[in-house]
Amino acid sequence: MKLNNGLLALEEDYVFSEVSRRVRRFASQNPDARLISLGIGDVRGPICPAVTRAMRQAVADQARQRTFHGYGPEQGYQFLRQAVAAALTQRGAPVPPRDIFISDGAKTDLGGIFDLFAPGGAVLLCDPTYPAVRDDCRMRGMRPVSLPGTEANGFLPLPPAGDGEVDAVYLCSPANPTGAVYDRDQLAAWVEYARSREALLIFDSAYESFITDPKLPRSIYEIPGAKNCAVEIGSFSKVAGFTGTRCGYTVFPTELQVRGVSLQGLWRRRLASRSNGVAYVVQRGAAAVYSPAGRQQTARALAVYRENSRRLAAALTAAGLPHWGGQHSPYLWLKCPRGLSSWGFFDFLLQYGNLVGTPGIGFGPMGEGYFRLSAFGDPASVEQACDRLPRTLEFLR
Amino acid sequence: MKLNNGLLALEEDYVFSEVSRRVRRFASQNPDARLISLGIGDVRGPICPAVTRAMRQAVADQARQRTFHGYGPEQGYQFLRQAVAAALTQRGAPVPPRDIFISDGAKTDLGGIFDLFAPGGAVLLCDPTYPAVRDDCRMRGMRPVSLPGTEANGFLPLPPAGDGEVDAVYLCSPANPTGAVYDRDQLAAWVEYARSREALLIFDSAYESFITDPKLPRSIYEIPGAKNCAVEIGSFSKVAGFTGTRCGYTVFPTELQVRGVSLQGLWRRRLASRSNGVAYVVQRGAAAVYSPAGRQQTARALAVYRENSRRLAAALTAAGLPHWGGQHSPYLWLKCPRGLSSWGFFDFLLQYGNLVGTPGIGFGPMGEGYFRLSAFGDPASVEQACDRLPRTLEFLR
Repeated sequence: MKLNNGLLALEEDYVFSEVSRRVRRFASQNPDARLISLGIGDVRGPICPAVTRAMRQAVADQARQRTFHGYGPEQGYQFLRQAVAAALTQRGAPVPPRDIFISDGAKTDLGGIFDLFAPGGAVLLCDPTYPAVRDDCRMRGMRPVSLPGTEANGFLPLPPAGDGEVDAVYLCSPANPTGAVYDRDQLAAWVEYARSREALLIFDSAYESFITDPKLPRSIYEIPGAKNCAVEIGSFSKVAGFTGTRCGYTVFPTELQVRGVSLQGLWRRRLASRSNGVAYVVQRGAAAVYSPAGRQQTARALAVYRENSRRLAAALTAAGLPHWGGQHSPYLWLKCPRGLSSWGFFDFLLQYGNLVGTPGIGFGPMGEGYFRLSAFGDPASVEQACDRLPRTLEFLR
Repeated sequence: MKLNNGLLALEEDYVFSEVSRRVRRFASQNPDARLISLGIGDVRGPICPAVTRAMRQAVADQARQRTFHGYGPEQGYQFLRQAVAAALTQRGAPVPPRDIFISDGAKTDLGGIFDLFAPGGAVLLCDPTYPAVRDDCRMRGMRPVSLPGTEANGFLPLPPAGDGEVDAVYLCSPANPTGAVYDRDQLAAWVEYARSREALLIFDSAYESFITDPKLPRSIYEIPGAKNCAVEIGSFSKVAGFTGTRCGYTVFPTELQVRGVSLQGLWRRRLASRSNGVAYVVQRGAAAVYSPAGRQQTARALAVYRENSRRLAAALTAAGLPHWGGQHSPYLWLKCPRGLSSWGFFDFLLQYGNLVGTPGIGFGPMGEGYFRLSAFGDPASVEQACDRLPRTLEFLR
């Protein structure tokens, strides 16, 4: 049995697993410490009433012969594809339901997408970026090529010069971990680049609901020409608290062809062998996110996270720590003080402030010396964290 | 952008899609025909009260801050892993919870498993077999090697002679599509073969709940030595009507090592990048399958399918059609009469009997001239089908 070298070569650990390990150790050695987590990007919940009502109804459907749903369409139910398409169209990215593919979360398709490619191809990835994508790439035998995100480019790298072959580009905007958001001109440059290189642009819009400035694009399809080169991967995790309920979608525009091959057709063929779709109960819940009540209720939860972000940003500013993101994103990206390394600052914050964040190095080598805070906590904890932060940093003076 | 040749080369269509297309065409041309489907292996439902009660409770958990569940463990919740492990142990296949990995259905892991291998390796597959596995294999750049299932070997091929390199063997027992079931000695021969060749035995137990003879193995781990060479892929689809609710599990024994590399560890590492686990609501439902009420209620649904099988088998016998399976399986496998091809018999049954089955050729070249009937229908329809079958076959005399 010959094993997959790409998989064998992955770092022994995923950054979040190492964070959990260090936190568990600290908690067991300091049982009285009141830890506050600004680490993992998990929502605080709960799921809003409009959605849980729809899910309860769907469970009742499954309990009756006449309304029971067995195997669903691999691409997802029409009722949900229509709702997603309408929402995208409404915000200026017109997409028909046939282009929408429902998934059990963005992570699944972010990895699965590399099944489309011949192994060995080059994939451009920001550094720092969501680490799962780099891992998926390697697992599938693709070659990740780094796009350095720096303070100078605002952590928003633009297309590189040179003419090496490129098969795909992965962009996440608003970005995980930096919270940086591409504007229209920058995304237009990426669309132009992908089209000229015949590369697939993989646009991760998991955090689009945090964008409040109407001038900033929330979908790649707001950019002319994107349908010829881009897929978009969306999620219900952050907008509606679906981290534990698992639903997302991927857009494969009909217009997306590679030398006469329809990528939508190829993806549909892949799904026929790889998936039996997403739970009916979950899809009913996701569709309710778009109901008038669902929109109102999820907007209220988002407002809480935005207020958390604002507070954290204010606390960082007050403490004199340079930071980015947090305005159209649940993530704040900060420079570790006193030249500390990412893990050094992690251990310092844990030890002296009982605060948990995520070391920037976990998102790529360029993340060394930086640190991510997440605004997904409950307001009381975030307020306490904002209070502890300046006092903790005093220890460094 | 260089596309995946393995994916490009897949037959334009999946057998079940072509079946749907022909049925839709016939139905639109014959709007008065009362079609009965014995085709796709979907259950009739509904989901039993013990399970829907647990799901309703879980939805309520998600609606409250205090009981909300965000990201779950990638490997699945301990409560469900414990329940699965206990059930396997109880039926003579002792497995600890740490070896259980919860999935959103057997199909997902049947494809994902090939991520463990270096591309190019050989995978032994029965012919006929569940077509998705052959496709997954090709998509991942593996080489499928056929094990011919014939009337002579009872559609239960044994390990081949010769010493070509083999990376994996995929076995499904009770088998889809033939309904054939391996006995202990036969599985022991496969375990011995896999161990001697350092190949991974992928055992698909999706239909184990249909086995009533206690002498027939329901898990590969009833066979000594299996933990050193085999993974087992299980499903809640057929036992508990989860085809539209999506839950399954894969067993990676701690003992399964390849030259010092733990496959369990490798799978866990893969999942960290590829999955955020399965919906909390779904896992709560799956765990309730193992409650006393859940066991009783699912057993009742299975008894209905068994009675359907028995009736179909009797009708085939009465009509003089040679057939296999159906005793420990929801599938009956029959030889097409008068030398008809699989699709020829499909069209004949559709036209003259308004009956829908699945052409054997869809499961591999060796399936040509055979046909699969599924016993998952409701009893009234199955009874009607049993009534129509002999009358329809009269047209061939």
